[in-house]
Amino acid sequence: MAKEITSREENYSQWYNDLVVKAGLADNSAVRGCMVIKPYGFAIWEKMRDVLDKMFKNTGHSNAYFPLLIPKSFFSKEASHVEGFAKECAVVTHYRLKNDSNGKGIVVDEDAKLEEELIIRPTSETIIWNTYKGWIQSYRDLPLLINQWANVVRWEMRTRLFLRTAEFLWQEGHTAHATQEEAIEETYKMVNVYADFAENFMAVPVIKGVKTANERFAGAIDTFCIEALMQDGKALQSGTSHFLGQNFAKAFDVKFAAKDGKLDYVWATSWGVSTRLMGALIMAHSDDNGLVLPPKLAPIQVVIVPIYNKTEQLSVISEKILPVKKELEAKGLTVQYDDRDNCKPGFKFAEHEMKGIPIRIAIGPRDVENNTLEIARRDTLEKKSVNIDQAVNYILELLNDIQENIYKKALKYREEHTYKADTYEEFKQILDEKGGFILAHWDGTAETETLIKEETKATIRCIPFDNPQETGKCIRTGKPSVQRVIFARAY
Amino acid sequence: MAKEITSREENYSQWYNDLVVKAGLADNSAVRGCMVIKPYGFAIWEKMRDVLDKMFKNTGHSNAYFPLLIPKSFFSKEASHVEGFAKECAVVTHYRLKNDSNGKGIVVDEDAKLEEELIIRPTSETIIWNTYKGWIQSYRDLPLLINQWANVVRWEMRTRLFLRTAEFLWQEGHTAHATQEEAIEETYKMVNVYADFAENFMAVPVIKGVKTANERFAGAIDTFCIEALMQDGKALQSGTSHFLGQNFAKAFDVKFAAKDGKLDYVWATSWGVSTRLMGALIMAHSDDNGLVLPPKLAPIQVVIVPIYNKTEQLSVISEKILPVKKELEAKGLTVQYDDRDNCKPGFKFAEHEMKGIPIRIAIGPRDVENNTLEIARRDTLEKKSVNIDQAVNYILELLNDIQENIYKKALKYREEHTYKADTYEEFKQILDEKGGFILAHWDGTAETETLIKEETKATIRCIPFDNPQETGKCIRTGKPSVQRVIFARAY
Repeated sequence: MAKEITSREENYSQWYNDLVVKAGLADNSAVRGCMVIKPYGFAIWEKMRDVLDKMFKNTGHSNAYFPLLIPKSFFSKEASHVEGFAKECAVVTHYRLKNDSNGKGIVVDEDAKLEEELIIRPTSETIIWNTYKGWIQSYRDLPLLINQWANVVRWEMRTRLFLRTAEFLWQEGHTAHATQEEAIEETYKMVNVYADFAENFMAVPVIKGVKTANERFAGAIDTFCIEALMQDGKALQSGTSHFLGQNFAKAFDVKFAAKDGKLDYVWATSWGVSTRLMGALIMAHSDDNGLVLPPKLAPIQVVIVPIYNKTEQLSVISEKILPVKKELEAKGLTVQYDDRDNCKPGFKFAEHEMKGIPIRIAIGPRDVENNTLEIARRDTLEKKSVNIDQAVNYILELLNDIQENIYKKALKYREEHTYKADTYEEFKQILDEKGGFILAHWDGTAETETLIKEETKATIRCIPFDNPQETGKCIRTGKPSVQRVIFARAY
Repeated sequence: MAKEITSREENYSQWYNDLVVKAGLADNSAVRGCMVIKPYGFAIWEKMRDVLDKMFKNTGHSNAYFPLLIPKSFFSKEASHVEGFAKECAVVTHYRLKNDSNGKGIVVDEDAKLEEELIIRPTSETIIWNTYKGWIQSYRDLPLLINQWANVVRWEMRTRLFLRTAEFLWQEGHTAHATQEEAIEETYKMVNVYADFAENFMAVPVIKGVKTANERFAGAIDTFCIEALMQDGKALQSGTSHFLGQNFAKAFDVKFAAKDGKLDYVWATSWGVSTRLMGALIMAHSDDNGLVLPPKLAPIQVVIVPIYNKTEQLSVISEKILPVKKELEAKGLTVQYDDRDNCKPGFKFAEHEMKGIPIRIAIGPRDVENNTLEIARRDTLEKKSVNIDQAVNYILELLNDIQENIYKKALKYREEHTYKADTYEEFKQILDEKGGFILAHWDGTAETETLIKEETKATIRCIPFDNPQETGKCIRTGKPSVQRVIFARAY
């Protein structure tokens, strides 16, 4: 139908790019690696943000805002953090431009050089912990449960719309606690919030687990994550929650007086999801006709297309259908009445499919006579004629059904693409021929993990929470292992 | 009561700073001129943002997101824009740091110098119009009605929390139209939206008008604004809406094909309000006890303080008051039950007054016996004993009354501080002794306006829409004038 986009079969990567652009989600910009999020894409992100924001507030967090610019020296304060983050970043060195004395436009004013360079935040642990130092004196100030919605910049060399961009939008939670136990509990709580969001709103099944040391956040003691599987068999890390121990409290000297007056460093967590989730949402469900959106995150849930030749017919149709639209809106749905007269129904249908609108209603003069509607669902493309009087209930149920169905479909895909490999040959064969998650034994060392990555491009996505323990031999070194871990090639 | 803050009488400027910090709204950060917006301050900003966002959507606008970084050359494309914006700005020159070879921490990697410097957006007309070029081909693509919520950076030398900061949060609307008339209509529409928001939500009366050429946005044909008067007699520009003509369309070569196929440049507007509104909100209503917030924007509208000595009393009080809390919440109000046991009622009262919570309920054992509550309103500090059964209705009405009352009070202040001056002596005397808005004749030239600004620090705030025409003589030059304009010293 939508001939405009490459098929997944032909070229998955090109399919993704075509889809993002043609569905009006995002575009590349004039600035290397930075995207423009277009209105329709932003409307989906807004829905995701609003749901997540409510979940954060329901778990006791407040929003705040910290500076975009961070003094360079802050990054040096936490030893492993600087290695991870201070390298590929945007550096502000001057604060003024001036007219070129040779009339060549505007140039940097060398007299306006900053004493210390400022870095555009790649993540905000440093500036936030530097601020927390002034906010935390005693146990009464704890826990401090703060989240920030912000833009960040990481100078990525290879970028892809939503999945990896130099600038992206995200939220970053930064919490401070009096005890290690409480901080660890918070770290679990937030990865669970992310999993809940991914599964129940995005309809994307995820595996919750712990990252290996190699894949851990720079500065964390432990990184928890949710991992999803895309339709091309590659994994996508969709959210992370970090237990930071006392690392940042020590780096920024943040101590609190306990009830007994004893001073101790504060315990920390941080956690985040980003516009990368848009990539996961798009890739998990969509097909060769375009986007498939879960009803709970679709900016438009129902679109109505009147089928008519003459203007008189339109007014009869409108009279019949507008009360249904109103009723659906009263139920909290967003409904669009697409009565544009400059394009044909077939064109509209293709456009609505491209945009992933979950339900399409078509109604023509004969439907008006018969008191029926044609209802098409985007996920399966099935159509059904429904009596108008039953339409509202039918649609409400159908939206639930679509939400559930695309989750189940994604889960089935993941189950069918989760393999066990017991030899390195088998492992490499699955990677090359099938993709997916591979459960395999690993000797637990960073060296072996790195070796496997270099040889196969597969990484350990996570060690699932409550991972079953079983003795075995590492697929690469043959050394003893106590459990299988999840390998995959990843975005 | 709140001895922690300087009185307005003693030092208005210090009062403002004390208030912002002590009420937990914002703090200075480690980065020169950049503020941290604290959770309570951010909660107010979120309320403002949500109301405005709904108003923008109700007037047909969609949100989108454009890059933070803008190529330097873009600023040179619109001649007057570059003069206004490309000067004091944050310039990104490098994209990598490295370990210093002398072991002195991390330094800028000179090998990672950008070919063209990137500017952190001070405003986004240039990057947006460069993008619109790809989005607009025909009249069918118009109007394009887009808004962006974003952070921007302007390298201000003298900064004050919320009022003038190097980085601030704002929204910027950027619309494209097929005709001049439609663009001008949009410019009016949005200044009216801002005035509606200021008056009906912030409870701040504003004057709508046109800026003089001197005060116009760099690149605009006309700038409309809303101007408010603060309690120290200084004006605060609270929102602007610009008619940009075809200036940016010409600079970025954005043409569209009309219905008849003729190509023409697109007409543009842009409009914005920022976290500066927080400054206006704080200064317009607050007093020496702290913040006074309009109920419609208060993050907490009602706080309940149980007055008790023994724990048994608390449970009796809670049993009596929690159903009232629940009922208020069912009406959509945000209610806090402040049953902290580590501070006294007097301390709590002062804190709630500092935070500007519109209504405080106190309830003790005797109230429980009498079936009464003590209800205190923040704006007038009046208290009244109210029967519990009437409490909900009383509170709902009281919130409306407070919203209205603080608006009226601010309006009365403005009316009492609006003067006419017919001589320059009189003009200067009012400025020095009373402050406020001064209606005076002006000869209509930029030179005279500049002269008056240099001599008195007063600027023309605006020429009100539908300004009454009357002949007179310019207060500075004696040349003929057709109308009075509004002068004031301003933030």
